[in-house]
Amino acid sequence: MASVQAVDPRTGRGGASYPAATPEDVDAALTAAVAAALELRDEARRTDGLRRIASGLRARGDEVVAVAERETGLPEGRLRGELERTAVQLELLADYVSAGEHHDAIIDRADPDARPVPRPDLRRTKLPIGPVVVFGASNFPLAFSTAGGDTASALAAGCPVIVKGHPSHPGTGTLVAQIVAEAGLPDGAFTHLLAADLDVAEALIDHPATAAIAFTGSFRAGSAILARANARPQPIPVYAEMGSLNPVVITAAAAAARGPEIVTALAGAVGTFGGQLCTKPGLVFAPAGSGIAAALADALGAHGPQFLLNAGIQAGYERGVDALSAGAHRLTANGSAPAGFAVHPAVFSVAATDFIDDPSLREECFGPAVVVVEYGELHAALDVLEGQLAAALYAEPEEHATLGPLVDRLTAIAGRVIFDAVPTGVAVTTAMHHGGPWPATSAPAFTSVGATAVERFLRPVTYQNTPDALLPPALRDANPLGIPRRMSAAGASLQLGLRHQR
Amino acid sequence: MASVQAVDPRTGRGGASYPAATPEDVDAALTAAVAAALELRDEARRTDGLRRIASGLRARGDEVVAVAERETGLPEGRLRGELERTAVQLELLADYVSAGEHHDAIIDRADPDARPVPRPDLRRTKLPIGPVVVFGASNFPLAFSTAGGDTASALAAGCPVIVKGHPSHPGTGTLVAQIVAEAGLPDGAFTHLLAADLDVAEALIDHPATAAIAFTGSFRAGSAILARANARPQPIPVYAEMGSLNPVVITAAAAAARGPEIVTALAGAVGTFGGQLCTKPGLVFAPAGSGIAAALADALGAHGPQFLLNAGIQAGYERGVDALSAGAHRLTANGSAPAGFAVHPAVFSVAATDFIDDPSLREECFGPAVVVVEYGELHAALDVLEGQLAAALYAEPEEHATLGPLVDRLTAIAGRVIFDAVPTGVAVTTAMHHGGPWPATSAPAFTSVGATAVERFLRPVTYQNTPDALLPPALRDANPLGIPRRMSAAGASLQLGLRHQR
Repeated sequence: MASVQAVDPRTGRGGASYPAATPEDVDAALTAAVAAALELRDEARRTDGLRRIASGLRARGDEVVAVAERETGLPEGRLRGELERTAVQLELLADYVSAGEHHDAIIDRADPDARPVPRPDLRRTKLPIGPVVVFGASNFPLAFSTAGGDTASALAAGCPVIVKGHPSHPGTGTLVAQIVAEAGLPDGAFTHLLAADLDVAEALIDHPATAAIAFTGSFRAGSAILARANARPQPIPVYAEMGSLNPVVITAAAAAARGPEIVTALAGAVGTFGGQLCTKPGLVFAPAGSGIAAALADALGAHGPQFLLNAGIQAGYERGVDALSAGAHRLTANGSAPAGFAVHPAVFSVAATDFIDDPSLREECFGPAVVVVEYGELHAALDVLEGQLAAALYAEPEEHATLGPLVDRLTAIAGRVIFDAVPTGVAVTTAMHHGGPWPATSAPAFTSVGATAVERFLRPVTYQNTPDALLPPALRDANPLGIPRRMSAAGASLQLGLRHQR
Repeated sequence: MASVQAVDPRTGRGGASYPAATPEDVDAALTAAVAAALELRDEARRTDGLRRIASGLRARGDEVVAVAERETGLPEGRLRGELERTAVQLELLADYVSAGEHHDAIIDRADPDARPVPRPDLRRTKLPIGPVVVFGASNFPLAFSTAGGDTASALAAGCPVIVKGHPSHPGTGTLVAQIVAEAGLPDGAFTHLLAADLDVAEALIDHPATAAIAFTGSFRAGSAILARANARPQPIPVYAEMGSLNPVVITAAAAAARGPEIVTALAGAVGTFGGQLCTKPGLVFAPAGSGIAAALADALGAHGPQFLLNAGIQAGYERGVDALSAGAHRLTANGSAPAGFAVHPAVFSVAATDFIDDPSLREECFGPAVVVVEYGELHAALDVLEGQLAAALYAEPEEHATLGPLVDRLTAIAGRVIFDAVPTGVAVTTAMHHGGPWPATSAPAFTSVGATAVERFLRPVTYQNTPDALLPPALRDANPLGIPRRMSAAGASLQLGLRHQR
């Protein structure tokens, strides 16, 4: 039987092995998923299940964190925080669905006087799209993996989930999958298929019952999944979060007023956890002559070598650093080769005019690397950027009145705009948007973090002139679920606006 | 200069010619569109513009209808209704945006006590996605064309629009484009490019500034546009509405109680306007032995020959009828060749078991053709259907208690489920969903009719710790727009749910 072996990034040594799935397991998982869909319609059952997964993660937190630490090299404190974040995420989605927010229910009662023709009774809610395949990320073995945000939001929507377990943390995924299996969800509602080979991933993408795909990872892998899903006889939505440069802009006034404080924050965001965050600031726009680049190089040097998650990421980082070295000045030394999959942080500086001319400086380098663009004129350098998950701006209060055009530029490219903080730290709330235009994601209308992540796995359906007893509860006259709905008054013209019912 | 000549479907004779666009015009249109985006942020300006287009259409209604009648062969009464529908649609979208519904604003205030880390202030709204290319449909020269639902919802969202004018109604498109040009929208916010050649369409899809595409038409054209958009260096969302069979299920009780009434409704839906509706019932599931098929053949025969929109649709219809004839029994005679692009309606019958075995009977035949599937056992025949825009069910009140599983089957494949009516007639309201799983559309989460059509052209952005003055008005503390927003209370736990502010 094929297996996947864990490797400790701190030493490069192999550890425990875990059974791997085969393409035959894919068909069984999707068949079971289809059979589970009816039972998953019971919202209380799903939300209870999500809450039990959260409790289970907390109850077995020591064990989960210990395995994850060995497999990822991430520090215990970070993993404990990530575990709690994962639990909170499951609970937020359960609460959102329990409150009925995901239905986005709209009721237009019949209007015999409507122009140009009488209007029937029309009621819209949202239904689960079907079985969802989740490709977990290596860099968040809990929050963006087995029971992470994609799984939580798909289950919250009522969709069965098949997770393609990431081979970089096989034991963590297997253990979390056990916790999910004990949460009382219907049989077939969740399957964990651990695999290192492409054939399982391809079978999951190709299976006719797969209704949507969620992915967090590299641009290369994400765009390969998207291309394969588009080539299916029936293309399906792919929600791929593929990384980002997350530019940070520092105004001259901010650099002068609190340069050292900003540098400390940036060094922490780049030089912790190996810089392996999709919201790592990979680009910093600092005023020429501000000394930000040199200070950041000093501060990152103090952070010292960082463990990367696996040998592939390590090799990719070294290639990325070499590529950046060709077009920008490397300000940090490359010391002796550290142990395991460790690498040295790297800070580069480049003049804005050179940055504009060299697209290779806008390739994401996953790991503890950052390019400081030293600018005189800022806007032209921002205008060459593609879609981003996040963009941050450090500015002084007296500048706020003049920053409108700059904020416009940042919102034009990014899914989240941050004031006076680094882009790392993606809070799990209702208002969070973790997404952005291509190439940050493949679907700019959707988020992979926060309560509205559930929207990716829902599909509106309108019921016309449907007897009350045959309507889903969300749409019945008596509003038995007590959910928020948007209503047009009986007989009202279309143009009179909506009453929000709560 | 290249031109596009109108052809009268009632005679096949050529009429007036209109100047055609070139690929060079595409770049000019997109450049102007990008420049218009800032001015289009003014919501009052956009909504005033939409309302002025509606007024302009009504004011010049006689002229518009006369041109459209000559170019489409559709009867005057239908075109007058379609014009009013188009105007109502523009007004509905203006009202929806004026009410601020499209923002879907969410505000999570900072929470220093949040677990596992303190939460910053996070506020989400939605922004326009960028210039939208609209491919109008031939079969609705007003409601799904130049100033139709796609244009209205993109402009409502704040997106500039470039319409690729349909060559089948060049004069109608040109006249409606004049009306739009007089509506006071910013320069570049709307461009009409009339073209019969593929090169203009391809340049529109490929242009780097194109941010999204909306299309209504055939599966063949829609999937070609989707494939080309996916092959761009930066793929963009394609909202293609590609047609549907729109199955109608008649229970034995309904057939017995009101067969003739149902047949009359079906014959009207298939045999009017050439059956050229994306919600035409192309499949009817009637109880074996009910006589529905024969009665429908008689009723459609009485409707007589129908004009199709152009020679291509006429040829496609004849091919489709031939293909259906190979697998089903044709119940209607093929009389002598009528004038212009007219064709004879066609009714086919087939046993459910044969229908299941022959996928060619599930190909849409655009025009006045319908396949009656005569069933003993119904569910297996429904289970072979792919995604549909709509599905309808005729049943008697005493059956309602047992219809749950059947309604589930219909909602599993369709974007709209209708009781006791034909699927034609797509009301323009807030709760309407005109969409569905592949191959009905390329994006099952979105609608092309109704107020929420605007969602296709919006992209969420979250502002983190942003000074009030730099927030868009929709997110400012004082709620100066007076729009509905979802709020979490200051300091509240994530889990406490949302308060809906109005």
